[in-house]
Amino acid sequence: MFRFMPRDEKFFDLFETASLNIREGATALKEMAESEGDYETWWKRIEEYEHTGDRLTHDLIKRLNQTFITPLDREDIHQLGSGLDDVMDLIEAAATRLTLYKIKRCTAEAKHLAALIHQMAEEIVLAVQKLKDLDSILSHCVEINRLENLADQVSRDAIAALFVGGHGPIDIIKWKEIYETLEMATDRCEDVADILERIVLKNA
Amino acid sequence: MFRFMPRDEKFFDLFETASLNIREGATALKEMAESEGDYETWWKRIEEYEHTGDRLTHDLIKRLNQTFITPLDREDIHQLGSGLDDVMDLIEAAATRLTLYKIKRCTAEAKHLAALIHQMAEEIVLAVQKLKDLDSILSHCVEINRLENLADQVSRDAIAALFVGGHGPIDIIKWKEIYETLEMATDRCEDVADILERIVLKNA
Amino acid sequence: MFRFMPRDEKFFDLFETASLNIREGATALKEMAESEGDYETWWKRIEEYEHTGDRLTHDLIKRLNQTFITPLDREDIHQLGSGLDDVMDLIEAAATRLTLYKIKRCTAEAKHLAALIHQMAEEIVLAVQKLKDLDSILSHCVEINRLENLADQVSRDAIAALFVGGHGPIDIIKWKEIYETLEMATDRCEDVADILERIVLKNA
Repeated sequence: MFRFMPRDEKFFDLFETASLNIREGATALKEMAESEGDYETWWKRIEEYEHTGDRLTHDLIKRLNQTFITPLDREDIHQLGSGLDDVMDLIEAAATRLTLYKIKRCTAEAKHLAALIHQMAEEIVLAVQKLKDLDSILSHCVEINRLENLADQVSRDAIAALFVGGHGPIDIIKWKEIYETLEMATDRCEDVADILERIVLKNA
Repeated sequence: MFRFMPRDEKFFDLFETASLNIREGATALKEMAESEGDYETWWKRIEEYEHTGDRLTHDLIKRLNQTFITPLDREDIHQLGSGLDDVMDLIEAAATRLTLYKIKRCTAEAKHLAALIHQMAEEIVLAVQKLKDLDSILSHCVEINRLENLADQVSRDAIAALFVGGHGPIDIIKWKEIYETLEMATDRCEDVADILERIVLKNA
Repeated sequence: MFRFMPRDEKFFDLFETASLNIREGATALKEMAESEGDYETWWKRIEEYEHTGDRLTHDLIKRLNQTFITPLDREDIHQLGSGLDDVMDLIEAAATRLTLYKIKRCTAEAKHLAALIHQMAEEIVLAVQKLKDLDSILSHCVEINRLENLADQVSRDAIAALFVGGHGPIDIIKWKEIYETLEMATDRCEDVADILERIVLKNA
């Protein structure tokens, strides 16, 4: 009988597509941070990824509301979808600030943070691809947590350095917000890792 | 049999009252932004609306916890209530900043953002009034999303302009936060639209 | 029959341990604010409490996912656990900022806010200890709300004073964020009170 009500596995595909989209966005942000100038072009590109992410989240919610038997708890599907969307939003928010504040060249700390976000996006892709079998996801979550702690420290040191480096107040305002936004992107990656961990524990 | 357990439709009334209260608050914020000085008086008035909103949310949660059969999913009722409360909180937060920072006169951009919040509040009222029949709510959600995108752009441009206009750092700190708070109010309106959209899709 | 499936009451112990940990953290923050210099040492100590809080939340979520019959709604256990964790995070965030910004001595307003957080932590402990019997919790929630309103006013006045006191922009940036972070800690205490109130109403 239950063969006639197969669990809708399309959800796994949507999650994978969303995570690949985040990796594209994170790659662009990393290249943007390493490049000089032409931030406007990079920003437009990252905005495209963000719009794609919005569409994917929208499709996910719509499908969730129309599916009777889901492969994971409805609430978990919803949270993971929102969590992935939030990562993409913060990547875009960081790109926006670099552009809006007419930054010419990124500091070493900003490049470092963008590289960490890129690494975390890679781990998210690997974890999400294993979601179907719930297998060896936890090691990726541990790695994401490690990277987040590192990013936290990089961003704290970067902000402390702003206040002792003889920078003018306007530069402090700009860079403080850029570091905070990059750090928030790594927080959202950690949130995704937490959600994945919860799903694994619940379905173990 | 089910006639003896009618769904408690008082929830719709509470939502409508909360949305009308938001519209009152948004009207006051718009008039405050257009007026010159006497921000203290406007702020006090908007604080009253916010207290009313708190009471309405409190009533809603209490009723939710005492009602066995609800006309919408409990979770949706809870989220819509909180969502409406958050809109009112941000309208009040914007008024607070205008007052606290002793702003004498609003910029054209701040007036524009306050007018957009007012339009969004109007759409929220119209959507919430149709909640009972779930009819033609989606067009209001689309409009709220359009207005939010517009507000996003107005606020981004306003902040970018702060950094090129030869403003002093203290003015930048004040106005940046005012624009961000106004923009956050439009984000919270969009959250309400998302919740309404989800309710419509789920009950379609 | 149900005797063989006792409700897992370990949850109440975990909540109490988490609330006692918050009180330790709040006591340290209060003493830090009253002390002069050596903020680095205080910060390290408060970081320890925060790590303890993280472990407690982790244990709670794990136990929640492995427990079939819970003494309170799963969702409420989850929210209360996260809520307590958030309070500790903000206490640590405030200590971080005092240290990172190389503050030498706290203002009277910062000391006042830290003392209010300490009082709220005390109320949280008392309320959580009564969770098992759901008895006389509400009076603590009322008191937490009163203290939060007071903290709100203290922080608003402190920020307004920054802009009229002839402070330089860099000092304004630092202290504005310190006051806001302290005030956010009191918001998170109020969130805990709201969750506790909801639990009481639901189980009354």
